[in-house]
Amino acid sequence: MKFRNFKLVGHVIFGRGAFAQIDEIIAPHRKGDAPMIFFVDHFFEGNQPWLAKIPLQGKDKIVFIDVTHEPKTTVVDALRDQLKAEFGEVSGIIGVGGGSTMDMAKAVALMMTNPGSSADYQGWDLVQQRGVYKVGVPTLSGTGAEVSRTCVLTGPTRKLGMNSDFTTFDQIVLDPEMIKNAPVNQRFYTAMDCYIHCIESLEGTFLNAFSRSYGEKALQLCQEIFLEKDNWDDDADEKLMMASYAGGMSIAYSQVGVAHAVSYGLSYLLGTKHGVGNCIVFDKLEEYYPAGVKEFKEMVKKHNIDIPQGICKDLTDEQFNKMIDVSLGMAPLWENALGKDWQSIMTREKLRALYEQL
Amino acid sequence: MKFRNFKLVGHVIFGRGAFAQIDEIIAPHRKGDAPMIFFVDHFFEGNQPWLAKIPLQGKDKIVFIDVTHEPKTTVVDALRDQLKAEFGEVSGIIGVGGGSTMDMAKAVALMMTNPGSSADYQGWDLVQQRGVYKVGVPTLSGTGAEVSRTCVLTGPTRKLGMNSDFTTFDQIVLDPEMIKNAPVNQRFYTAMDCYIHCIESLEGTFLNAFSRSYGEKALQLCQEIFLEKDNWDDDADEKLMMASYAGGMSIAYSQVGVAHAVSYGLSYLLGTKHGVGNCIVFDKLEEYYPAGVKEFKEMVKKHNIDIPQGICKDLTDEQFNKMIDVSLGMAPLWENALGKDWQSIMTREKLRALYEQL
Repeated sequence: MKFRNFKLVGHVIFGRGAFAQIDEIIAPHRKGDAPMIFFVDHFFEGNQPWLAKIPLQGKDKIVFIDVTHEPKTTVVDALRDQLKAEFGEVSGIIGVGGGSTMDMAKAVALMMTNPGSSADYQGWDLVQQRGVYKVGVPTLSGTGAEVSRTCVLTGPTRKLGMNSDFTTFDQIVLDPEMIKNAPVNQRFYTAMDCYIHCIESLEGTFLNAFSRSYGEKALQLCQEIFLEKDNWDDDADEKLMMASYAGGMSIAYSQVGVAHAVSYGLSYLLGTKHGVGNCIVFDKLEEYYPAGVKEFKEMVKKHNIDIPQGICKDLTDEQFNKMIDVSLGMAPLWENALGKDWQSIMTREKLRALYEQL
Repeated sequence: MKFRNFKLVGHVIFGRGAFAQIDEIIAPHRKGDAPMIFFVDHFFEGNQPWLAKIPLQGKDKIVFIDVTHEPKTTVVDALRDQLKAEFGEVSGIIGVGGGSTMDMAKAVALMMTNPGSSADYQGWDLVQQRGVYKVGVPTLSGTGAEVSRTCVLTGPTRKLGMNSDFTTFDQIVLDPEMIKNAPVNQRFYTAMDCYIHCIESLEGTFLNAFSRSYGEKALQLCQEIFLEKDNWDDDADEKLMMASYAGGMSIAYSQVGVAHAVSYGLSYLLGTKHGVGNCIVFDKLEEYYPAGVKEFKEMVKKHNIDIPQGICKDLTDEQFNKMIDVSLGMAPLWENALGKDWQSIMTREKLRALYEQL
């Protein structure tokens, strides 16, 4: 198809305290006594008042997701195997957390009905069967995972999502109360995933009016939150939640750019997480996004955020080459950022020099 | 539910010329030899080059929809009966036109599987069965009908939509080329449905961050198109299409206000169409929306638009009373506009005086 036919999430509910309606929302999707499985970011383990919000019935279960590392195909497959062994079938999976937890929920929901390993489906439109019912509940906002048609996984040979119409959530619950107490640095890194993504897509070559309208709104919300406000408040949580949603929607007809392409190399080699990795890279991209980087630095300063430095200083040639290979493999990102001629602009030498600055 | 769980359209495709992909888009939804039925605004009847864009196969058929009057339950039922008599079953209905044509497509698609008369389903969540596959293709932008969960129908006793999750389109095709040659006055009236709706919802009491973000974007796009631009161009069509989409999405957690409530009375009694009716009313609402009405008048002037005047001058007391009854029946609109105490503010006398100005 010349233009992508974009699959939207099935239902969206937005409101402070909306998570209290989760029981009512998922009820029509229960199949006999097959349980609903709640994947919860391990950050919340042991937080009883918080976990008491989750309405378990019958065989329903909370599974804590260790997001120390970003989702791996091996972990997805193992979780699927455990759920199958324990329950046979499940009614659905509800991912409550940041991008990693939500992506894990999407991936396992798909793998409950698709045979083999999740690594077999890393790519575009390889998934053949609708998965089980799946719900996304962000507790960190910025990745856009709540509306995307992918779930990014690190597999045996590549870091690549299971991109398909089946991957999109059936339901998302946008409750600003759920992101209220996120740690300040983590909240900032994740929010900057949205900000950087907006700059990359709005300054890219792939944009159209649909994605521009969403990208501009997300960018404006980020600016209101991180530059105009002097204190973090409930309104900031609400706007950040909408910025993430709009930023995710803007990806329909746009693409990310240099920061994401370079950050993927860091992530692959060093396991640097997506949010902070993008910040580390974007901080050095004045040449490509001068206005955006200047504004980013103002936000970092105003919010007193720590951006790690010197993370590549001890790497070997072999390691640099691996990162360069991974990064240059992201052709659509480079083409969006630098145009069709990108290979003559972003040479291996130039990219090596960039990695050395990080 | 405290917060509404909002059903989104299934798929959206946006792009100049995207309608050329309609064949490919609907193909997976064909059921045996049951035809796809194209409901096309009668404005296009006889326009061969334009109609040739519609890819008919097998028993597929174009049905021209007379939108001289807004959709009636009797017309919906008659069309359903005709399609059943001619084909038994259909694979789907594709509405190509403005709000009336799209609403007619939604209503008939639902009535292909729900028994009785469409009048039985005027209200909220009365529809019990998923209808046949349905697609919306706007040729006029502004109503937001492409994303709404309703289809407004005039029935034997009331003008009210079939509001349900089943009413939302499975697919929308947003092709700016399809709205390119709309007549100037008609385009303006329909666009103002979006503009007025934004003012009413942003200044209303029901708003939250979700609807605000969409409403603000739609408003900003309307301002760019109608105030900042000196000539109508392709970019204006693209932005208007997105303004309508965003305006429609903003209704999720907001409500319209005074202009819509008063305009419904005109529509019920005089058959005044929704777009122009809103303009006729909004033009006199300085007291309720001073900044919005001022800006509206600038747009009217800049685009040299004719807003009908004196349409109520020859009405009888009985007729005024009928309009007042219909209008005051729209309680949620009044409450959104004027607060819980609206009945003490908008008395019958005050509303009569307003109607007399129109």
